[in-house]
Amino acid sequence: MSADHSDRAAVKAALRAQHIETPSWAFGNSGTRFKVFAQEGVPRNAYEKIDDAATVHRFTGVAPSVAVHIPWDKVSDYADLARHAEDAGVRIGAVNPNVFQEDDYRLGSVCNPDPAVRRKAVDHLLECVDIMDVTGSRDLSVWLADGLNYPGQDSIADRQARLEEALTTVYERLGDDQRMLLEYKFFEPAFYATDVPDWGTSYAHCLELGPKAQVLVDTGHHAPGTNIEFIVAFLLRKGRLGGFHFNSRFYADDDLMVGAADPYQLFRIMVEIVLGGGLDPSSGVAFMLDQCHNIEPKIPALIRSVMNVQEATAKALLVDTDALASAQRAGDVLGANAVLVDAFSTDVRPLLAELREEMGLDPDPLEAYRRSGHAEKVRAERVGGNAAGWGA
Amino acid sequence: MSADHSDRAAVKAALRAQHIETPSWAFGNSGTRFKVFAQEGVPRNAYEKIDDAATVHRFTGVAPSVAVHIPWDKVSDYADLARHAEDAGVRIGAVNPNVFQEDDYRLGSVCNPDPAVRRKAVDHLLECVDIMDVTGSRDLSVWLADGLNYPGQDSIADRQARLEEALTTVYERLGDDQRMLLEYKFFEPAFYATDVPDWGTSYAHCLELGPKAQVLVDTGHHAPGTNIEFIVAFLLRKGRLGGFHFNSRFYADDDLMVGAADPYQLFRIMVEIVLGGGLDPSSGVAFMLDQCHNIEPKIPALIRSVMNVQEATAKALLVDTDALASAQRAGDVLGANAVLVDAFSTDVRPLLAELREEMGLDPDPLEAYRRSGHAEKVRAERVGGNAAGWGA
Amino acid sequence: MSADHSDRAAVKAALRAQHIETPSWAFGNSGTRFKVFAQEGVPRNAYEKIDDAATVHRFTGVAPSVAVHIPWDKVSDYADLARHAEDAGVRIGAVNPNVFQEDDYRLGSVCNPDPAVRRKAVDHLLECVDIMDVTGSRDLSVWLADGLNYPGQDSIADRQARLEEALTTVYERLGDDQRMLLEYKFFEPAFYATDVPDWGTSYAHCLELGPKAQVLVDTGHHAPGTNIEFIVAFLLRKGRLGGFHFNSRFYADDDLMVGAADPYQLFRIMVEIVLGGGLDPSSGVAFMLDQCHNIEPKIPALIRSVMNVQEATAKALLVDTDALASAQRAGDVLGANAVLVDAFSTDVRPLLAELREEMGLDPDPLEAYRRSGHAEKVRAERVGGNAAGWGA
Amino acid sequence: MSADHSDRAAVKAALRAQHIETPSWAFGNSGTRFKVFAQEGVPRNAYEKIDDAATVHRFTGVAPSVAVHIPWDKVSDYADLARHAEDAGVRIGAVNPNVFQEDDYRLGSVCNPDPAVRRKAVDHLLECVDIMDVTGSRDLSVWLADGLNYPGQDSIADRQARLEEALTTVYERLGDDQRMLLEYKFFEPAFYATDVPDWGTSYAHCLELGPKAQVLVDTGHHAPGTNIEFIVAFLLRKGRLGGFHFNSRFYADDDLMVGAADPYQLFRIMVEIVLGGGLDPSSGVAFMLDQCHNIEPKIPALIRSVMNVQEATAKALLVDTDALASAQRAGDVLGANAVLVDAFSTDVRPLLAELREEMGLDPDPLEAYRRSGHAEKVRAERVGGNAAGWGA
Repeated sequence: MSADHSDRAAVKAALRAQHIETPSWAFGNSGTRFKVFAQEGVPRNAYEKIDDAATVHRFTGVAPSVAVHIPWDKVSDYADLARHAEDAGVRIGAVNPNVFQEDDYRLGSVCNPDPAVRRKAVDHLLECVDIMDVTGSRDLSVWLADGLNYPGQDSIADRQARLEEALTTVYERLGDDQRMLLEYKFFEPAFYATDVPDWGTSYAHCLELGPKAQVLVDTGHHAPGTNIEFIVAFLLRKGRLGGFHFNSRFYADDDLMVGAADPYQLFRIMVEIVLGGGLDPSSGVAFMLDQCHNIEPKIPALIRSVMNVQEATAKALLVDTDALASAQRAGDVLGANAVLVDAFSTDVRPLLAELREEMGLDPDPLEAYRRSGHAEKVRAERVGGNAAGWGA
Repeated sequence: MSADHSDRAAVKAALRAQHIETPSWAFGNSGTRFKVFAQEGVPRNAYEKIDDAATVHRFTGVAPSVAVHIPWDKVSDYADLARHAEDAGVRIGAVNPNVFQEDDYRLGSVCNPDPAVRRKAVDHLLECVDIMDVTGSRDLSVWLADGLNYPGQDSIADRQARLEEALTTVYERLGDDQRMLLEYKFFEPAFYATDVPDWGTSYAHCLELGPKAQVLVDTGHHAPGTNIEFIVAFLLRKGRLGGFHFNSRFYADDDLMVGAADPYQLFRIMVEIVLGGGLDPSSGVAFMLDQCHNIEPKIPALIRSVMNVQEATAKALLVDTDALASAQRAGDVLGANAVLVDAFSTDVRPLLAELREEMGLDPDPLEAYRRSGHAEKVRAERVGGNAAGWGA
Repeated sequence: MSADHSDRAAVKAALRAQHIETPSWAFGNSGTRFKVFAQEGVPRNAYEKIDDAATVHRFTGVAPSVAVHIPWDKVSDYADLARHAEDAGVRIGAVNPNVFQEDDYRLGSVCNPDPAVRRKAVDHLLECVDIMDVTGSRDLSVWLADGLNYPGQDSIADRQARLEEALTTVYERLGDDQRMLLEYKFFEPAFYATDVPDWGTSYAHCLELGPKAQVLVDTGHHAPGTNIEFIVAFLLRKGRLGGFHFNSRFYADDDLMVGAADPYQLFRIMVEIVLGGGLDPSSGVAFMLDQCHNIEPKIPALIRSVMNVQEATAKALLVDTDALASAQRAGDVLGANAVLVDAFSTDVRPLLAELREEMGLDPDPLEAYRRSGHAEKVRAERVGGNAAGWGA
Repeated sequence: MSADHSDRAAVKAALRAQHIETPSWAFGNSGTRFKVFAQEGVPRNAYEKIDDAATVHRFTGVAPSVAVHIPWDKVSDYADLARHAEDAGVRIGAVNPNVFQEDDYRLGSVCNPDPAVRRKAVDHLLECVDIMDVTGSRDLSVWLADGLNYPGQDSIADRQARLEEALTTVYERLGDDQRMLLEYKFFEPAFYATDVPDWGTSYAHCLELGPKAQVLVDTGHHAPGTNIEFIVAFLLRKGRLGGFHFNSRFYADDDLMVGAADPYQLFRIMVEIVLGGGLDPSSGVAFMLDQCHNIEPKIPALIRSVMNVQEATAKALLVDTDALASAQRAGDVLGANAVLVDAFSTDVRPLLAELREEMGLDPDPLEAYRRSGHAEKVRAERVGGNAAGWGA
C-alpha cells in the first residue's frame, strides 16, 4: 500500500479536522469499588478540570472541547464556566447528566417504580438542557444506570414504558440544534438487566423519538465477542450514529485508555467511520473519550489516548479503498483482508509527527508535556481543597 | 405460593393450548465439525421424519406440528407430504430455507458480493413460499449463514443493503396469512461478523419490511451474558416477537435440549411470555424446538424437550402476579424476587401428570415411549437407505 | 426418584451437619464504583456485625460462624471480640486480610515492584495469623487484588516469583491446625492481568507450599462459560479444595445472593461436593458466603442465601447415586442426566421446613425474621456513628 | 524506539532460528458443521500434503517441518513418507493422534466409561509413538475430544482417574528424546464439560507424569477474556511450556489465521516468549500452526500465517527490555506500557524483507507464490481422487 503526496495531504487534512473531546471526569480521581487511589495535582473543581482539558488540547491540537458531568461539574454560573473554557482555548462539549448517585436512585432513575423519583430524574435531565442552552453545547449525553439486580425485581416491560415517556419529555425540550445521544450498556451497575442494554434498544428508542435522537457507542459497553464495527457501520448507514465514548477493555467496562487493549479493533472501527463518511463533520459523529485513569497519571494518559485515536484514524485513512473494493468484488478473501492489514501494519507515527509540526505543535506531545513541567506545577499549586472525583 | 382449584384449572387450560413445534432435522443425525455419530433407526426421508414427529406428539399431546427444512426435506409432492402429516396426526409447520450448503454460498447467500448467487438464494427463498402455499404453513423461518471470517473480506454496509433488498423481495411475495420470521445469530458459521448478528439488526429490518416480518429468537444465538428475557419482553411489547427456536447452550450454539443448561433462564423467558400475553394464540408467538441430538437418542430427547418447555411454562403460570406487581410497586427487591423463586421451586411434575391423564395420555411420556417398543421397531424397520442428516 | 424414610433421615442429618459461614462485611454497606447506597440499621463496628451474624444463625440454625476482614473489623482486643461472638451464639471463622485499600497498594501488594510495599503486605498477612491464634480461627483466607491494568506494566514472571516468596513466608508461620486458602480471581480490580487469575495458578502454588495450602473457589471469579463443578470435582479428588466463597453472578463478579442467578449451577456444584465426600467434616471444605447486598436489606438477604445453599445441598443429597452410576456405566446419556434433573426438580422446601422444626426453629426463617421486628429494632438503635462499609 | 545495527543483526538471527511448523490437515478441506466448501487443487493424500508444506517452506524459509495427523495421514510405510518429506526439503514434526472420529468414541476415548473403548484409544496413542520412532518425531501432540454434553452424563472424577491411567501408560512408552504435549480445550466438541478444559488441568497431569510431559497451548482454546500471555509466562517459568498451536479466534475455536483477529495479543504472547527464553531452541518450545482455511486458499493462508508469527516475533524482539525493566521498577505505568506499544507500532516488514533476501528468498513470499503459478499447477494436476479433509 502506498500513499502518494496528494494522498498524504488529504490524510493530514482529515486528521487535522478530527476533533476528540475529553471528559472532565477523567481528570479527577477514579477507581474501582475496591479503592480509589488518590493522585497529586488532581483538579478540585470544574474550572481546574477545564484547565487540564486545555492542557491536553495545547499539546495535541485536536482536543478543543471538554464534556461536563452534572452535578460533578456544578457551578453557580455556567456562562462564566463557558467563558473560562474559551479563555483557556477550549469549549464545553457534551453535557452528561447524573441520575445514579443519590440514594433516591437505588432502584433506578427514569425507570424507577416510584413516580416521584422518575420526575426528579427527568427534572435533572431537563436542567441539563438548560445548561446546554447556556454553554452552547450540542449534545445531551444520556447514560442511565437503571436496571435490575434480581429477576422479578421490577417489570421489564413497564420500565420500558417509563423510559419511553421520560425520553419523550426530554426530547421535546431539545432546541433545534441540540441532540440527545442515548448510550447503552450491557451491565453494571445493574447486574441482572439494564434498561438500555444494547444498541438495538437505544436505536429503537431513537427511531421513535425522532432525528435528534442518536445512538452513543461506548466501546466498553458490549458483551464479549461483540463486533463493534458492525454496529458502527449499521448506525452510520442509517444516520443514527451520534458518537463514541472511547475507552478500552479486556473483560468488563474497564475504561482503560482507548486502543490500549485491542488497537486492531479500534482501527477497524475507524475504518468503518472512514468508509461510512463519519469523519465528515456534517455526519455529526462525536469522538469523545470516556476513561478512568485509576493508576496512571491523568493528563499524560489523556494525551496518549488522543494520540491513539489519531493513529487508528490515520491508519484507517491509509486503507487503499479502491484495492479493497476490488478485492471484495472479486471474492478475494485474503486479498481484501490484506488491504486492511497493510494499512494497520504501517507505522503512522512519522506522519503524525509531521502533521503536528505543521500545526505548530511538538511532534512528540507526551515528551513535550513531560518537559513542560506542568505536572510538577499543578502538583505544587493544587494543595488543599478536595480532589475531584466521581462524587464531586 | 399456592394455586387454588380454579387457578389450577386455568393453568392446565393454558398448558393444553400451548403448542410446541418439533424440527424435522432433529430426528436425523447431526454432529459437530469433528464427527457425526450415526444412530440406528434414524429416518431416511421427510416422510419418516414426520412419522417421528407424530410419535413425539402421540406421547406428549402438545407437539402437533413439525417444521421442515428445504432441501433436506425436499419431496416431489408437498401436498402429498402434508396429507401424510395429517394422516399421522400432525401438520407441517414452519418452512426453513437452506441457503448455506452449496459451494456457491461460500461467501454468503443474499449478501454475497456476486449478484448471481444472491439471485439464486432469493429464488430459493421464494420457492419456499411456494411450498408454504401448498403445505398451508404460516411461517417462513429465515436463518442466514451469511457473514465474514476476516476483517475487510467484504463491505458490512453493502451487505446490509443487499440483505434489505432480498428480504423486501421475499416479503412482498408473502400471502396475507404468511409471515417471515427473521432469525439472528451472534456467530457461526461466520466467525468475524454475521450479517444478522443480534435482535437489534433483525428488529430494524422487520420494522422496515412491515408487520408480517417478525423477530425469531433462537435461545442459543446470543453473546455470553445476554439477558434473553429482556429481548423477549421488549419484542412482545412492540408486537414483534415471532417465536422461538428453543435449545440450550453452555458456551456457543450448542443446540442441546432446551432447559438442559439453565432451566431457570428458560423459566424467566416463559415468565415474560406469560406476563406479556405471549401464550395467547392471537399473539402469534411460535414455540419451536431447534436442537441437535448428537449423542443421545433423538425421539426421547425431543419428548424430554417438549416436557421441559411445559414445566417451565407451568412454573411461569404459577407466578403469583398480584404479589409480584405489589412487591415491585413497593420496591421490595427480595419480596419480588421471592415470588419468582417460589414459582420456580415448585415441583410441577404432578400437575403435568394430571394434565396428561386428563388428555388421555400416559402421565410419564418418556417411560411410556420406552415401554412402547417404538425405538426397537424403527431400528428393525429402517435398515438400508441413507440415514437423514444435515445434508439430506 | 424417591427417598424412603431412612434416606430422608440421612439427608436431614447431613443438612444439619453442614455449616455455612457468613461474612462480616456483607452486613455493612456496599455498592459499585458508581454508588454505595446507604441503608438504615446497618452495623457500625465489628461487634454489631457479629450480632447480625448471630441473628442469621438464630433463624437458620446452620450459620454458626462469621468471617472477619482486617482492618475492616479491627478491634483492640480480639479475644474480647471472640468472647462477644461466643456470647452471641456464634464463633469467629476465617480471617480475611486486606492488602488492597491503602494508597501504597496502587501497583499491588505482595507482587508490588517495591520491596517495601511487599514487606508491608506480608506483615499484614502475618498479623492476621496472629489474630487467628487469638480467635481460634482455622483459615487464613487470602485474596490478593494484585494485577496489572496495562500490558507491560510489570513483569508477569517476576510477580509470580514475588508471590511465591510471600506465600512461603506466610505458610511457614501457620500453626499445625491452621490453613491458608488461596483464592483466585479472573479480573477486577486489575483489568489486564491478575496475579492469581484461575484455579490452576492457585493449585500450582498450593502444591509447592504444602498440605496446609488449599484452593478457595469463589463462585463469581471465573471467565464466562467456566464449568465450576469440574474444578470442584478435580480439587476434591486431589484433596485441595479448601472451601467456597459463595455468591452468584450474571456477568462479572456481581456478588449477588448465592443461587440467585443460576440455581442449577449451584446444585451441580453441590452434587460434586456430595459425590466427592465434601460434606464430610473431615474433608475440610468450608462453605462461606461472600456477597454484597447493594440494594436489598442485608440480614434477610443472608438468611435467604443460607437457605439457598441448603436447598441446593438437599437436592444434591436426593440424587439417586446408584441409578446415576448405573446409567453412567451403561452410557445412557438421557437416563444419567435425568437422575440429576429429577433431584433438581424436587421441591425440597417441605423437607427443610421439617428439619428446621426438628431443630427447634421456625420452618420459615424469612417470615420469622420479619415477624420478629428485629429490623425495626436495629434501625431504631443504630442511629449515629458511622455505618460499616468496605472502608471500615 | 530504535534498534541499532548490532541489535538488528541479533533480531534477524533470532528470526532466522525460529521454526514454525505447519499442520498437514490445514492443506486439506475443512469447514464448520454446516458445510465444508470444496477447493480445487487440494492434496489427496499425505504425500501431497507434505508437498504443500514444502511449498510453504520454500517461500518462507522458516517452516521446515510438518505435523501429521493419524489416521488422516495414514500410510503403509512411514519411513517412506519421512524420506519423501526429506526429499521435498522438510521433515515430519509432531504426530497427532485422532481418537474422536470413530463411532466408538461417541462418549469419549481414554475417558470413556467402557474399558474396551479406552483400551482401543490407548492402543492408538501407542501406535502413534511407534510412528514417531520411525519418523524421528519428537512430539506426541495429544488433544482429546473427551467430555460431556449433559450434566450427570458421566462421573467427572472417574474420568480424571481414567485419563490419568491412560496418560501414564503412554508416557511410559515414550523414548528418551520424545515428549508428550497435552493440549487443553475449553469446549467443543463436548459442550458441558471437557476432560482437559484448561491449562491448570493439563499442567497438573504433566506434573504427575514427569518432565517429558508438557503443556500445549492452542491460542483458540480459552474462555473469553483469558489472558493467554499470563499462561505462557507461568508455564515458561516452570519449564512446562511444550509449545503452541497457533491460530486466531473472535469468539469460539474459530481456527482462523494466526494474528488475524488480534495481532496485539499475538505480539504480547511473543513478548513473554522472548522475555522467558522461549526462542532459545533449548527451551523446547514448539511453534506450530493449527488452522482451518474454510473459505480462503490454503497455501497462501499458511504463508501469511507464518509471516504473521514472524512479524509478531520481530516486534517482540524489538522491545527495549532495559527501558521496560527500568520503567517497571520505577512503577511508571505509562512508560512501561509505552515500551511495548512502541515496539508493536513499528513496521517490521522492511526488516523481514531484508532478512528474506539475506536468506536467498523473495522479500514478498505471497507475491512470489502468486507469480510462481504453483496454485494453477496443482489445480491442473490434482484432478480426480478424493480431496483430503478432516475425514481422510
